[in-house]
Amino acid sequence: MTTATLLISCTDQKGLVAKISDWVFSHGGNILHADQHADSSAGLFLMRVEWDLDGFDLARSEISANFAQLAIATNAKWKIHFSDYVPRIAIFVSKQDHCLYDLILRQRSHELAATISVVISNHPNLEKVAHNFGINYHHIAIAPDNKLEQEKQQLALLKQYEIDLVVLAKYMQVLSSDFLTKFSQVINIHHSFLPAFAGANPYHRAHKRGVKIIGATAHYVTDQLDEGPIIEQDVIRVSHRDSVTDLIRKGKDLERIVLARAVRQHLQNRVLVYGQTDEQGVDSNLGLRTVVFD
Amino acid sequence: MTTATLLISCTDQKGLVAKISDWVFSHGGNILHADQHADSSAGLFLMRVEWDLDGFDLARSEISANFAQLAIATNAKWKIHFSDYVPRIAIFVSKQDHCLYDLILRQRSHELAATISVVISNHPNLEKVAHNFGINYHHIAIAPDNKLEQEKQQLALLKQYEIDLVVLAKYMQVLSSDFLTKFSQVINIHHSFLPAFAGANPYHRAHKRGVKIIGATAHYVTDQLDEGPIIEQDVIRVSHRDSVTDLIRKGKDLERIVLARAVRQHLQNRVLVYGQTDEQGVDSNLGLRTVVFD
Amino acid sequence: MTTATLLISCTDQKGLVAKISDWVFSHGGNILHADQHADSSAGLFLMRVEWDLDGFDLARSEISANFAQLAIATNAKWKIHFSDYVPRIAIFVSKQDHCLYDLILRQRSHELAATISVVISNHPNLEKVAHNFGINYHHIAIAPDNKLEQEKQQLALLKQYEIDLVVLAKYMQVLSSDFLTKFSQVINIHHSFLPAFAGANPYHRAHKRGVKIIGATAHYVTDQLDEGPIIEQDVIRVSHRDSVTDLIRKGKDLERIVLARAVRQHLQNRVLVYGQTDEQGVDSNLGLRTVVFD
Amino acid sequence: MTTATLLISCTDQKGLVAKISDWVFSHGGNILHADQHADSSAGLFLMRVEWDLDGFDLARSEISANFAQLAIATNAKWKIHFSDYVPRIAIFVSKQDHCLYDLILRQRSHELAATISVVISNHPNLEKVAHNFGINYHHIAIAPDNKLEQEKQQLALLKQYEIDLVVLAKYMQVLSSDFLTKFSQVINIHHSFLPAFAGANPYHRAHKRGVKIIGATAHYVTDQLDEGPIIEQDVIRVSHRDSVTDLIRKGKDLERIVLARAVRQHLQNRVLVYGQTDEQGVDSNLGLRTVVFD
Repeated sequence: MTTATLLISCTDQKGLVAKISDWVFSHGGNILHADQHADSSAGLFLMRVEWDLDGFDLARSEISANFAQLAIATNAKWKIHFSDYVPRIAIFVSKQDHCLYDLILRQRSHELAATISVVISNHPNLEKVAHNFGINYHHIAIAPDNKLEQEKQQLALLKQYEIDLVVLAKYMQVLSSDFLTKFSQVINIHHSFLPAFAGANPYHRAHKRGVKIIGATAHYVTDQLDEGPIIEQDVIRVSHRDSVTDLIRKGKDLERIVLARAVRQHLQNRVLVYGQTDEQGVDSNLGLRTVVFD
Repeated sequence: MTTATLLISCTDQKGLVAKISDWVFSHGGNILHADQHADSSAGLFLMRVEWDLDGFDLARSEISANFAQLAIATNAKWKIHFSDYVPRIAIFVSKQDHCLYDLILRQRSHELAATISVVISNHPNLEKVAHNFGINYHHIAIAPDNKLEQEKQQLALLKQYEIDLVVLAKYMQVLSSDFLTKFSQVINIHHSFLPAFAGANPYHRAHKRGVKIIGATAHYVTDQLDEGPIIEQDVIRVSHRDSVTDLIRKGKDLERIVLARAVRQHLQNRVLVYGQTDEQGVDSNLGLRTVVFD
Repeated sequence: MTTATLLISCTDQKGLVAKISDWVFSHGGNILHADQHADSSAGLFLMRVEWDLDGFDLARSEISANFAQLAIATNAKWKIHFSDYVPRIAIFVSKQDHCLYDLILRQRSHELAATISVVISNHPNLEKVAHNFGINYHHIAIAPDNKLEQEKQQLALLKQYEIDLVVLAKYMQVLSSDFLTKFSQVINIHHSFLPAFAGANPYHRAHKRGVKIIGATAHYVTDQLDEGPIIEQDVIRVSHRDSVTDLIRKGKDLERIVLARAVRQHLQNRVLVYGQTDEQGVDSNLGLRTVVFD
Repeated sequence: MTTATLLISCTDQKGLVAKISDWVFSHGGNILHADQHADSSAGLFLMRVEWDLDGFDLARSEISANFAQLAIATNAKWKIHFSDYVPRIAIFVSKQDHCLYDLILRQRSHELAATISVVISNHPNLEKVAHNFGINYHHIAIAPDNKLEQEKQQLALLKQYEIDLVVLAKYMQVLSSDFLTKFSQVINIHHSFLPAFAGANPYHRAHKRGVKIIGATAHYVTDQLDEGPIIEQDVIRVSHRDSVTDLIRKGKDLERIVLARAVRQHLQNRVLVYGQTDEQGVDSNLGLRTVVFD
């Protein structure tokens, strides 16, 4: 079955659910999933609709233009995705292999509907892992004085491989604002329960603070370090018996699972970002945040 | 704000979301929440829609009759609730007070939009608790040979107090099929992670089995003991250090929270039961189960 | 059964478990529980031993002096508690009643082996709750200009009621350094997953940040706000559907349970604090933290 | 650092902690971890002690004989393990690769202190996975009429590879009593929260029952299907939105993590089995169960 998924947000107003579902129905589409949310503090309406394209009377090429008429009338932000388009992922890594293996194996077992097109790293260590699975690997070393230069190479590769999504799978470098301006679809896994322990060495700091639970956070990357909109978080109990090494080991399981869930939600077009920086003039007291339509 | 909530289920078919949201919109209602689910194994469409009644052009008394036309056409099962109707609860207890206190305190702090009209018990022990909060208490002792007789008294009280929902808050008696035929809206808390340890003494059996996690389950009561459709479950870790007494103590926190969540979901008209015994001819391989629209 | 519990910490060295268990055994005590931990980063040995006093050949009054000889030789910090001593608790509250009710009901159902001797509040609101359970209530209003004055009254009450432990059960005032110097056994519940959202309005800030999980933290109070050693934490999932009001409601369950667990652990002499400010010259890179011997 | 770990159980009696820790100390050993548990319902004392062998005055070959004198006096069951002995694992698989990959990758990243010596399967499918990591793979097909015959081959391989532990990593065959008599150290992962959904198709049955949480259980294998002593369990929330396919996908993460934790605990000699079938005459009302000294 081929489906279309609409993600839409606009100022809340009467009749939006009816208008949108009507549009689908009037063109012969059968709605498979519909979920809608109103953020009353932001005065925003947010909705995800997925419908079967079988019997839909608009051609693939006409759908966007047709829906645009409705969207313009409501001053909405929106995107339509088709389930038969397979997004292309670039995974960025450093030396740790656990998230890389995890993403590759999930992709191979059809948990992630995407192609892993390339692995890019600032270290040569994981080349063999990528090659074992027949994935190209590019080693682009990063030094303090060549970062912007090297990021240009990275961006060129993203273009060359026609990448839709970059996943930072324990990539221990901060992407520059410049990079993010040129390529903004980036998911990162941070090894703490944000906003606790943003920045470097979260496990060491968690151990020092004596917390009883540690966490991991997957978020879209913005130019504010570890401040991007959160997609998924999870936690695990620790105790005084756990050394920093134990926290790192336990955390690896969290990192794997939290990152994989976030990438999967993204690939299924379930994540809608809204808030602070939104051009729709959303309440500036609201952070940049996500609706995850599950 | 006064709202109406529609819970509806019917055989899946094209255009249902559109038809239903259209009906709301065409009468001037603003949809606040809409959530829809298709159980493909049962071929069923299930939906919950909540809309603001302000500006709705149908009188309260006309709404059901009007919607019935649409519902009949789709052969649907449905219910409409109004947010300004305050349901009346009877709590059944035996000797343990933790769930009783919990429900009363949540009701008092506005977590449960209902009136606790009466407490009914097979023991006199908790009369003082009820009276402290100004709630009537009826002691109806149950013996093996007088159960049906005493249940008649219970049913008479439910009628007298105009009860909408019975909550079994650690009521250690099994309700007869006869009782349930006459009054079917009953939520029970079972002190295990069903279907594990259905029946008597679940904590003792969990301890004997050496499980590493215990649970609690809130479900609607049917005439099959501990087999009713599950509304909510939760769990907590235990270890070899925990005696049966510790399991009981830890379990009390679970019981409180799981029961309260289930009652709250029910009172917000978020729980839709469907499955096996459904007259709509649902796949008999499917158990009686719930959709909890959260 | 009456038991004695020893909590001890000292620089790690060979033979400590043997010396301590030998001391118990040689005086005729049967060890019921023994748990030991070595914090290798701090070079510290920490142990909890509980033994049956039946048949122990030292009189209650001799035990400390006798053990002191062994302790001095190892330069240890230690405390011995007897299970038949019932600690006396003062609960500090403001306007919210959920933690107060919870502690009282647990104490009444024998989950907390202590006496709740008095409730002290900066507001009059909860007097009736305390009185319902026969507990004295003192209203000591706090204003910016009378805090130290009023704290003197609080301290006088702690003396008058012979209080062993103060529990801040949603007491929305910060205790002064002066208060803590005079009375240091204070447990607080903070309504966030520390160190995230230390300080005021954690639920509002969690909502703004768009976190997917919220938490609560019970800790000993120090003169560094929300920086005291953590005893217990727990978390619950939230979603975009949860408003700030929902976070507050869900958080109340966490607060109740986390605070009750911490108080119980403390009352069972399972919590040993060590770290940074320790006079034993512990690695200053280590925070003030707890071992919770469970 | 090389350490020795003693796991011991015997009828509870005075002075056991002292006797055992004394024995270690008197021979010059420094206790690194000591944990002790008394199962009062079984009247059993259970203990784990780990000590540094540096400076220990007994030769490796003398330790067991020497300790036996103490053990005989207390009629104890016991085992001593040395940390520099690397156990040899055989992994049994069928067609699913997720637990196999997980165990191999954890072993490679030093989370599991063992050698994975061989992979044995009733299917040829996963040979390439094993070979990629340089591990021998033996395909031994099982049919209803050749099981005992084929198990002889399996047992011969266990002997040939000098295997200490068999891990059933989603091996979809039941081992015969005969096999278990000849090789008893076997850990299995069952894809449900035992005792719920023991036997075949647990995810299908969980879906049919409409549970709100699913689980996985790692246990030692006995000749009672899914009745062996539980080492570890964990759970994850599911909802009406999850089809059987979703349960299977979510369950795979649980299976991986629960199995890996159990194998790790076993390899660190933290798991002590006791109960029902114990020759020490333990209360027959107590199931075969584990103490996991964490």
